Amino acid sequence: MNSFIVKGNIVWAETNKELKSAEKGYLVIKDGLSEGVFDSIPEEYMDYELIDAGDNLVVPGLVDLHVHAPQFAFRGTNMDLELMDWLNTYTFPEESKFSDISYADNIYSYFTEAIKKSATTRVVAFSTLHVEGTMCLMDKLEKSGIISYVGKVNMDRNSPDELREESAEASSENTIRWLEECEKRGYRCVKPILTPRFVPSCTDELMEKLSVIRKEWRLPVQSHLSENTGEVAFVKELEPWSQFYGDAYDKFGLFGGEDGCIMAHCVLSGEDEIALMKKNGVFIAHCPESNENLKSGIAPVRKYMEEGLNVGLGSDIAGGTTESIFDAAVDAVKVSKLYWRYVDNSFEPLSFSDAFYLATKGGGAFFGKVGSFEKGYDGDVLILSDEAIPCPRYLSPVERLERFAYLHGDKTGIKGKWVKGERIL
Amino acid sequence: MNSFIVKGNIVWAETNKELKSAEKGYLVIKDGLSEGVFDSIPEEYMDYELIDAGDNLVVPGLVDLHVHAPQFAFRGTNMDLELMDWLNTYTFPEESKFSDISYADNIYSYFTEAIKKSATTRVVAFSTLHVEGTMCLMDKLEKSGIISYVGKVNMDRNSPDELREESAEASSENTIRWLEECEKRGYRCVKPILTPRFVPSCTDELMEKLSVIRKEWRLPVQSHLSENTGEVAFVKELEPWSQFYGDAYDKFGLFGGEDGCIMAHCVLSGEDEIALMKKNGVFIAHCPESNENLKSGIAPVRKYMEEGLNVGLGSDIAGGTTESIFDAAVDAVKVSKLYWRYVDNSFEPLSFSDAFYLATKGGGAFFGKVGSFEKGYDGDVLILSDEAIPCPRYLSPVERLERFAYLHGDKTGIKGKWVKGERIL
Repeated sequence: MNSFIVKGNIVWAETNKELKSAEKGYLVIKDGLSEGVFDSIPEEYMDYELIDAGDNLVVPGLVDLHVHAPQFAFRGTNMDLELMDWLNTYTFPEESKFSDISYADNIYSYFTEAIKKSATTRVVAFSTLHVEGTMCLMDKLEKSGIISYVGKVNMDRNSPDELREESAEASSENTIRWLEECEKRGYRCVKPILTPRFVPSCTDELMEKLSVIRKEWRLPVQSHLSENTGEVAFVKELEPWSQFYGDAYDKFGLFGGEDGCIMAHCVLSGEDEIALMKKNGVFIAHCPESNENLKSGIAPVRKYMEEGLNVGLGSDIAGGTTESIFDAAVDAVKVSKLYWRYVDNSFEPLSFSDAFYLATKGGGAFFGKVGSFEKGYDGDVLILSDEAIPCPRYLSPVERLERFAYLHGDKTGIKGKWVKGERIL
Repeated sequence: MNSFIVKGNIVWAETNKELKSAEKGYLVIKDGLSEGVFDSIPEEYMDYELIDAGDNLVVPGLVDLHVHAPQFAFRGTNMDLELMDWLNTYTFPEESKFSDISYADNIYSYFTEAIKKSATTRVVAFSTLHVEGTMCLMDKLEKSGIISYVGKVNMDRNSPDELREESAEASSENTIRWLEECEKRGYRCVKPILTPRFVPSCTDELMEKLSVIRKEWRLPVQSHLSENTGEVAFVKELEPWSQFYGDAYDKFGLFGGEDGCIMAHCVLSGEDEIALMKKNGVFIAHCPESNENLKSGIAPVRKYMEEGLNVGLGSDIAGGTTESIFDAAVDAVKVSKLYWRYVDNSFEPLSFSDAFYLATKGGGAFFGKVGSFEKGYDGDVLILSDEAIPCPRYLSPVERLERFAYLHGDKTGIKGKWVKGERIL
């Protein structure tokens, strides 16, 4: 079951330093897990099905650590405001529509289809605060074969009536109802993740209750952190006792921990916050396009990598416009160069190798052994055709992959996709 | 001849402030020129051929003010160096191959095909210093129907032997031979543009000779200006007499003038240089992606627009990776937000409207009345399908265009293309 060999021009990252590659190599998947990449087929796998990808590229699936599924309907529009105004003007009104299950069903179908067709094999998503809508998204993702975490959002302050739970108590009860429903449905691919939207949306009372739920249910948690100056100032005003933004999660046991924690953005994190993220094993979801679009700035990703923090990439639809994590990788490289130029030239810009590492193994670590072809890693595999990109001379597989990423090859070039050894495209 | 009507969702820019649109409108082209956009077909055009674009978008063709055709072969790779090192390591060796006419023929075929399939209807290109290769590129562009300027490059210093003309005299003679050959071929769509590569590549003696040629032949001129700190420092060292980089062109009558002048980049232009660009009517080719990739920085485009300078967009392949001027427009918006955040918040970031204006009418002005659907403008028209971009709710034509641009719709969505009323796709 789920054992096969893919022959092609294989590229993968084991570290961020240099991409590994094997021209006309053989990737062996056994029971859904990688056995490694070989120059020829080892004797013991001779009877496996051989999938010949021809001259195509073969790479690990990409990982999206941060995306808002309900914002899919307005991605690529409304690029004029900063975070807090953008939320109030466009995002909260849109998310409030997800009380209507038929609206939710429609948008989540589009979203899931887009993710399925993309290079993404793993996704960590926000839904909205609505339990039924969240179940709808989870059902669709489960069916797609993408392995994912989905969070019903908690919000009990600073948003319009239509998009606010009536109390901390109600939010907590909704959350438990959602978790029980998840358990009942016995999902194989999709799991719940606790999702206080961000500090401005959650009272301390709610945070306290989520803390209890987290411990009882052993849940990972996701939220937003230090994204935009206006937001950071608002957090300071709301939680004057907090030493820094992350402290307002940490106090409630929602900042790291062995069940996993993702904080999106971290554009403005100070030294104390960085130290605590490191200590607590927080995963940073770097969302470079969103941080440009909402005028937030550029996260110091090289610094985070050098300090040994966990970093992956996020599309952050609809702050970001595209579900493409290839685009996110390229954007990460580009903005790191501007960071180097304008903010701090003591940190080298990211290379494509750095960015592809973040897009695969970096974010994949949140899911376990995911995002590489080293032995024992989950069999998340993509076959990529770059035939739509004219190539008038020889390029190595690594050069072809870089070019594929920069030139949006994933718009037309995804020819095969496996998640943990299951073919879904 | 070349009179027809296109019905569709029409969007165009008359100013940068707000895009105009007509849902299910009629664009009338008479003898290759726009008669304007109408809600219904005026009586006098009733017998024109009606092209029904259905629910598709109809917009003016885009203008690429700066691209290096011979660098097409390595676009999307080698993104690790700054300008001067990048030129010496990757670019000059590649361009030296264009002494081989069969190599040139091959790469220029790919380049021309890519431009033809793109949203670009007008292009201003560098070739290399080779006369035969340049004629090859010009022949291909002529045949494509794209209206273009192409420049044989002048270089007589600071490059390897294989990519340097042996003297100012030789460079001048080559240029005249090229111009005579252009005249002989009697092109309809493609014209020559004088192209001193940039100050580091051209001795004063060569500049002097080009100055004479320019006057005699009444030629437009293109070059590079104030792109990267290392380059600017080198220019200062080479031409200590110059007040600023642009002054080293101006002294030789190669900075502006009534025959037209494009300077690419202008990331680091100071007040004197800006004032002179304004006075001399220099066109600035803003190349946001290239300026990120080569770590040059961000040009202060809002400032240039507010001061009333001529600004358009350039792909700058292979500093930029893509021929897509839609991508350049989106990049212009994105980097302007980072400029606002990190460099100077007294200049508002660009809106999509600003960027689409630059991509069409802004750059189009270099060609005359180009880049709009106002009466009398050349009939450069695109039909764009966004059906590949899932759209779960109503969007206005302007929103659809923004989304098309952000989500790389031009990779698959160009369904019709006319240049001055001639259909080429």
